Amino acid sequence: MFKILKTEGRARRGEFTCAHGTVQTPVFQNVGTQGAIKGAVSAQDLKDLGCQIELSNTYHLHIRPGDQVVRAMGGLHKFMNWDGPILTDSGGFQVFSLSSLRKIKEEGVYFSSHVDGRKIFMGPEESMQIQSNLGSDIAMAFDECCENPSPYEYVKASCERTTRWLHRCKAEMARLNSLPTTVNPKQMLFAINQGGTYDDLRVAHMKAIAELDLDGYAIGGLAVGESTEVMYHILDEVVPYAPENKPRYLMGVGTPSNIIEAVWRGVDFFDCVMPTRNARHGHLFTWDGIRNLNNAKYQLDDKPIDEHCHCPVCQNYSRAYIRHLLKSGEMLGQRLTVMHNLWFYNNLMVEIRKALDEGRFAEFREQWSEKLGKRI
Amino acid sequence: MFKILKTEGRARRGEFTCAHGTVQTPVFQNVGTQGAIKGAVSAQDLKDLGCQIELSNTYHLHIRPGDQVVRAMGGLHKFMNWDGPILTDSGGFQVFSLSSLRKIKEEGVYFSSHVDGRKIFMGPEESMQIQSNLGSDIAMAFDECCENPSPYEYVKASCERTTRWLHRCKAEMARLNSLPTTVNPKQMLFAINQGGTYDDLRVAHMKAIAELDLDGYAIGGLAVGESTEVMYHILDEVVPYAPENKPRYLMGVGTPSNIIEAVWRGVDFFDCVMPTRNARHGHLFTWDGIRNLNNAKYQLDDKPIDEHCHCPVCQNYSRAYIRHLLKSGEMLGQRLTVMHNLWFYNNLMVEIRKALDEGRFAEFREQWSEKLGKRI
Repeated sequence: MFKILKTEGRARRGEFTCAHGTVQTPVFQNVGTQGAIKGAVSAQDLKDLGCQIELSNTYHLHIRPGDQVVRAMGGLHKFMNWDGPILTDSGGFQVFSLSSLRKIKEEGVYFSSHVDGRKIFMGPEESMQIQSNLGSDIAMAFDECCENPSPYEYVKASCERTTRWLHRCKAEMARLNSLPTTVNPKQMLFAINQGGTYDDLRVAHMKAIAELDLDGYAIGGLAVGESTEVMYHILDEVVPYAPENKPRYLMGVGTPSNIIEAVWRGVDFFDCVMPTRNARHGHLFTWDGIRNLNNAKYQLDDKPIDEHCHCPVCQNYSRAYIRHLLKSGEMLGQRLTVMHNLWFYNNLMVEIRKALDEGRFAEFREQWSEKLGKRI
Repeated sequence: MFKILKTEGRARRGEFTCAHGTVQTPVFQNVGTQGAIKGAVSAQDLKDLGCQIELSNTYHLHIRPGDQVVRAMGGLHKFMNWDGPILTDSGGFQVFSLSSLRKIKEEGVYFSSHVDGRKIFMGPEESMQIQSNLGSDIAMAFDECCENPSPYEYVKASCERTTRWLHRCKAEMARLNSLPTTVNPKQMLFAINQGGTYDDLRVAHMKAIAELDLDGYAIGGLAVGESTEVMYHILDEVVPYAPENKPRYLMGVGTPSNIIEAVWRGVDFFDCVMPTRNARHGHLFTWDGIRNLNNAKYQLDDKPIDEHCHCPVCQNYSRAYIRHLLKSGEMLGQRLTVMHNLWFYNNLMVEIRKALDEGRFAEFREQWSEKLGKRI
């Protein structure tokens, strides 16, 4: 259930309730692709970092350890020891970006595993079955994600197939949720809007999927080759056609500035590997920009990563120590940097929500969007 | 200060107080070579694992980040965010085992760094200065550790030089502790007994170093090539010559069974990389023996690593999940396995101390030493 508490222009301050709890939106989902956060960050750590909802990956978990294994272990929540909300993406994006020897047919996609080359078929029903086995709170529809730019006619045909797939996803999810043995009978389904960089295809596809009255609407196929301006333009055009009373999720985006701009355009959910990936290279997020702890100038710097940050890392460790850990290949370095960056993202959302609550999000955007955009 | 609370045969139950707190002995020191525990285990985690005293490495920290850096950051306690006792070993062992192009002279050792080949000189004074910069609670004397077996005449001459070095260590430590700018003016010094596998050299060396009335006495140069029986024999021969009222530390040892046998022979302090190193290969310690989580039979096993274990890992995670993490290369797998193994070692010492407190250590040894020796 999604409740809009307040709006400011197109931006919304909401509350989303699913089987494992209530999420305050706008929200950033913390990415644990294989059922674990990178950098040895545990589910317990996630709580300390203010994470509200974790995101795992259907494709990865299907390949390893296998969704049947996760199901037998009681579902993903129990498996990874995280009792809060979980969203699983459908595997569509990874099938197109990671696997090899892909063949797209009406029934689904034939591809080879990126781990062992094993031949796998995944269609809408298979994706729903896998996600049902994982028992996430939110399942994502199985879609095709085209790279940008792709030819108009290709994208048009792909969108139409993705809509047909969505009907099959919805039917299969309803069937699975009604089985007495299902892991999470309250599993929800979010649709995914596609259409590349073509306004008319985006809008037509959103209209088509809106008719299915699903639990949420994602915008996929952005941040895959196009410029930031094009991404914002697509959001301007398509978001007004997403159902007002359902959460909207911009998949795989993005920088802090991207997130502020997308909230401004009416988006509620986000996810991105940027905070974890940057952390592992020693690139730390602060409101003043990226701090690269590999830099020699931090060798004797006893200040925390960010002097204004309240995260568990900044409360306890210095730049000099973390730099030492990164330089000497100690895993603890990656853990501390990932923790800081995830906290930064979760805290960014806290600040965005606070600004919305207090009716000053336009001002917040004015103050931070361009500044952070230049810095990060 | 070392207080013996109780004895049983040669075994001692004691309490050791240093600048950063009191340690219940017999104790296992948790090894954080480069100022961090392997497997992304943080200082906060160490507290949850029942660690009483952390051990870091003079050689490694001198090379990277440099002991001057650690000193400038307020010393090792502050640097790594661990406010409990720390012991630093002298670097002697690493100079002999890790570095290349070694030349041993009366003044000390000339060698090349294993990281960048840089030429370094370390003698007793340098080792004390580095450890003083680190500000550990216990500094170890700079010694030569010969591999076993080594020729009698070589070991004899080496022991005599190690004794001469010890006099220089003691003098230098006294000088450093009296400086107004020293990091930890209460830094203690432990001597190291050498003598290879030669009873008479061991005893002669222990008698010689006992005269210096230091804060503790370590037995070095064991578990470096000789059999377990030889190691126990040396302990039988040499421990009676170690000062009664000072803690005794068996360096780099060992298996759970080794530890029980050494406590039986009068040893109080231990350290070993076994728990961390085994953990990283998926080899988990239990009272029933080593559990290898790489084994396919754990794929669908929802039990904890050890059903009788109260560690934070066994309270929250299944064999199946940890196996999945190890198989998919998720760092969290290493963190959880290291945490379990360190807890096992710390808890082994709890059980040993309890048995001593209750006057039933002979029985405990009878029950567990051989059994664990066969299993682990």
